[in-house]
Amino acid sequence: MTRPLTIALDAMGGDIGPDVVVPAALRMLERRADLSLILVGREDVLAAKLAALGASGRAGIVIRHATQVVDMDEPPASALRNKKDSSMRVAINLVKSGEADACVSAGNTGALMATARFVLKTLPGIDRPAICTTLPSVHGSTHMLDLGANSDCRAAHLLQFAVMGAELVRAVDGIERPRVGLLNIGSEEIKGNDLVKEAHTLLSKTDLNYIGYVEGDGIYLSPVEVVVCDGFVGNVSLKTSEGVAKLIKHYMSEEFRRNLLTRLAGLIALPILRAFSQRIDPRRYNGASLLGLNGIVIKSHGGADVLAFENAIRIATIEVEKNVPQLISRRLSSLLEQRLAS
Amino acid sequence: MTRPLTIALDAMGGDIGPDVVVPAALRMLERRADLSLILVGREDVLAAKLAALGASGRAGIVIRHATQVVDMDEPPASALRNKKDSSMRVAINLVKSGEADACVSAGNTGALMATARFVLKTLPGIDRPAICTTLPSVHGSTHMLDLGANSDCRAAHLLQFAVMGAELVRAVDGIERPRVGLLNIGSEEIKGNDLVKEAHTLLSKTDLNYIGYVEGDGIYLSPVEVVVCDGFVGNVSLKTSEGVAKLIKHYMSEEFRRNLLTRLAGLIALPILRAFSQRIDPRRYNGASLLGLNGIVIKSHGGADVLAFENAIRIATIEVEKNVPQLISRRLSSLLEQRLAS
Repeated sequence: MTRPLTIALDAMGGDIGPDVVVPAALRMLERRADLSLILVGREDVLAAKLAALGASGRAGIVIRHATQVVDMDEPPASALRNKKDSSMRVAINLVKSGEADACVSAGNTGALMATARFVLKTLPGIDRPAICTTLPSVHGSTHMLDLGANSDCRAAHLLQFAVMGAELVRAVDGIERPRVGLLNIGSEEIKGNDLVKEAHTLLSKTDLNYIGYVEGDGIYLSPVEVVVCDGFVGNVSLKTSEGVAKLIKHYMSEEFRRNLLTRLAGLIALPILRAFSQRIDPRRYNGASLLGLNGIVIKSHGGADVLAFENAIRIATIEVEKNVPQLISRRLSSLLEQRLAS
Repeated sequence: MTRPLTIALDAMGGDIGPDVVVPAALRMLERRADLSLILVGREDVLAAKLAALGASGRAGIVIRHATQVVDMDEPPASALRNKKDSSMRVAINLVKSGEADACVSAGNTGALMATARFVLKTLPGIDRPAICTTLPSVHGSTHMLDLGANSDCRAAHLLQFAVMGAELVRAVDGIERPRVGLLNIGSEEIKGNDLVKEAHTLLSKTDLNYIGYVEGDGIYLSPVEVVVCDGFVGNVSLKTSEGVAKLIKHYMSEEFRRNLLTRLAGLIALPILRAFSQRIDPRRYNGASLLGLNGIVIKSHGGADVLAFENAIRIATIEVEKNVPQLISRRLSSLLEQRLAS
């Protein structure tokens, strides 16, 4: 008998912890009764939370005790050294031992990346794992990486990110040859820094569907499925996007609240404004993949709510079902062979 | 008799050229009859354009003939070497000779920066000029630099950008001690690359009102007047913002066009949607300052329309009236003295 698809959840991680993770797990189980979810964290807290939600002994959910919690601002080195029984570490251990197929954590990104890398190791051919997320686009969606794991990169790393991103999109979205773009600037005088130029040369030699440079607006407007950049630039771009979206929301709400008439118009337009808000709702995009590891680890936003965390669990299940790490690994070996042969 | 405030306009620059620049000049003169505007470019073309608009011989406007035009994709070195009688070069020459107080161009950014630097030279204490623009913020507005002139920077350059941005804001917005932030990433494990850490140390030692690190969303959401970054990151962030704004506009218009009912609601909400659109209209923010030069040069977006180009001219007049280069220069000398004294 094969065991069901199993996801370990760092139930103590994130700004909110069990109050988000436990209800999100229960919601996910309502959708997919075939899953097995392991809540990792303090047993007393988690049992009480399940009981409070009337879900003690619910099929498909088990608690795995872990005594410690990694703080949101704890340095990764400290988490690695001093938090060997943290909910985060134990959840990752479950992936390592094969008891879980993937884990999801809303905890401290740095600690998660460092711990996952230490416990699971990187795939052969990958120097550095990267953080990858889906972003909305006028053409559907774009995957962007790295979003902050590596703030200083070499060109070879960007090449590895491109391979990982392309395999992820191929597996998850079923696009055979996803278009890969390299994030660059459009200022005519320079056209990029040395890193980007070197990565461009490397990418042009692969059999990836590499379409060349993409500017910042291209993430959202260009027909491209994977956008590659170093983690500093990727993180700034991602956070900038959040800022613009919030500013626009702020302006819109100010305009509709200007006076009685505008409020009335807002009331009439409410269903449309709601539908619109849902489309740009960042919770729908919550769940970033830590790619390049020997195992599936999904990072949820620290401030994720129930809906957002549930989405992160859903992404984990998809990556398990599609065997993403194995696909990346296979692709890397074939790239390596091509190079040896040439 | 002192001559009126005079702005040289590269009338051939940009994607559209005289069809935008000439009407924008006329509109600007309607607002401010005390200005003198010099249209630089092919005399026959510009005279015909003025005639077509019924403005031949209009007071406050003169044509300065220039035989060449810098192409939008022309390498800066080629423009410098081969286009010595381009509308762009002649407009900058007018600033150098003192016939104009500032110039505005919608032409090729790289060529404009290279030519301006060659003709006007940088201010003492400035290694590299930077491109700076105003961005909307929930707190009013933010100035960000560099936006693409320098894709590889050293920490000392970021310090110079901070001084220039702060002086610009002090002069233009009348804020005595503008808050200066350094753009960084929030990924916990690393907190920035070496460049940012070193710049942070430098900035902390100045008497600027330095508030520390700002993440991408902080450009639009944090109480900060000046955000400093290298040109690669700044350009990606700026273009990303444009992309997000366009995506959101696209989604909103899709939602309001979904069916007859949503169209009706859209009609009712139209005045509000218009007011909202105006607030995020990028044309209102058109006109980036090339800071650090011995003279005032304003870069308009290449695709600027009449309203947008007029705004760029308006920014030029403000910087002239406030003596921005002189203020930056004075500030730099005082910083230098402080260092020598300490």
